[in-house]
Amino acid sequence: MKGITRKVVMIAGTFDLLHPGHVHLIHEANSLGDVTAVIGTDTIVKKLKGKAPIIPERQRRYMIENLKGIKHAVIGFSTTDFSKIIKEIKPDIILMGPDQQPSNEKMEEFVQRAGAQCEIRRLESRITNFSLTSTTGILERIKHGD
Amino acid sequence: MKGITRKVVMIAGTFDLLHPGHVHLIHEANSLGDVTAVIGTDTIVKKLKGKAPIIPERQRRYMIENLKGIKHAVIGFSTTDFSKIIKEIKPDIILMGPDQQPSNEKMEEFVQRAGAQCEIRRLESRITNFSLTSTTGILERIKHGD
Repeated sequence: MKGITRKVVMIAGTFDLLHPGHVHLIHEANSLGDVTAVIGTDTIVKKLKGKAPIIPERQRRYMIENLKGIKHAVIGFSTTDFSKIIKEIKPDIILMGPDQQPSNEKMEEFVQRAGAQCEIRRLESRITNFSLTSTTGILERIKHGD
Repeated sequence: MKGITRKVVMIAGTFDLLHPGHVHLIHEANSLGDVTAVIGTDTIVKKLKGKAPIIPERQRRYMIENLKGIKHAVIGFSTTDFSKIIKEIKPDIILMGPDQQPSNEKMEEFVQRAGAQCEIRRLESRITNFSLTSTTGILERIKHGD
């Protein structure tokens, strides 16, 4: 009897200062299949957010690949066009965070441009049982205290 | 045939902003046995370091228990006396970071006070192939940039 092939689930992001929101996304992704995390390069993060990430890309990759539930982690997107990385990873599912860019419609365009068959899903809500569930929240706490 | 019982390896620390030094310590600990991470309470961290940790204790526990190579994570020490937690965890090995407090001699005193049989080991060197391998380094970068 052949083993069951798990689906390929792609998540993408900066994964700068890791927090429970990242872990929650990974848990959900891992419940759907084998998770590949695609990490934005330092250059694209700076372009998208107007400032460089705190943690350099190689270190961000090392940290995320050492979280439970991650199968692969790649420094993978260097433009705002996700179609190239979708072609490479060939995910069955792309799972996005509740308020993550781009929109589902925009991501659907990238999937079509890649000529891929892929379901786009989005977490319904942020994790709520911890106090610092965003990189911004952690930075605020560091800069201004409680 | 009975399974091989792995040794219990204890690591202890604040585990505030996670970095490759933590991951390196966990990898080494996991190569020696099943890893229990013991996390300092917010109160003891504040007492030891003169300031509260950035990340609250429950969140620190959640993050570390989601790193690969961790079997258990407990919020475990609330005094500078480790003998109580050594009695509870009953580690075969305590693995410490290269420049982590207390000294081996002091830790040996705690082991004896706990009436425990336990080997104390220490990593020889810090991980060197990443740029931000301490919480202090990450905080400096956040506050002052490159």
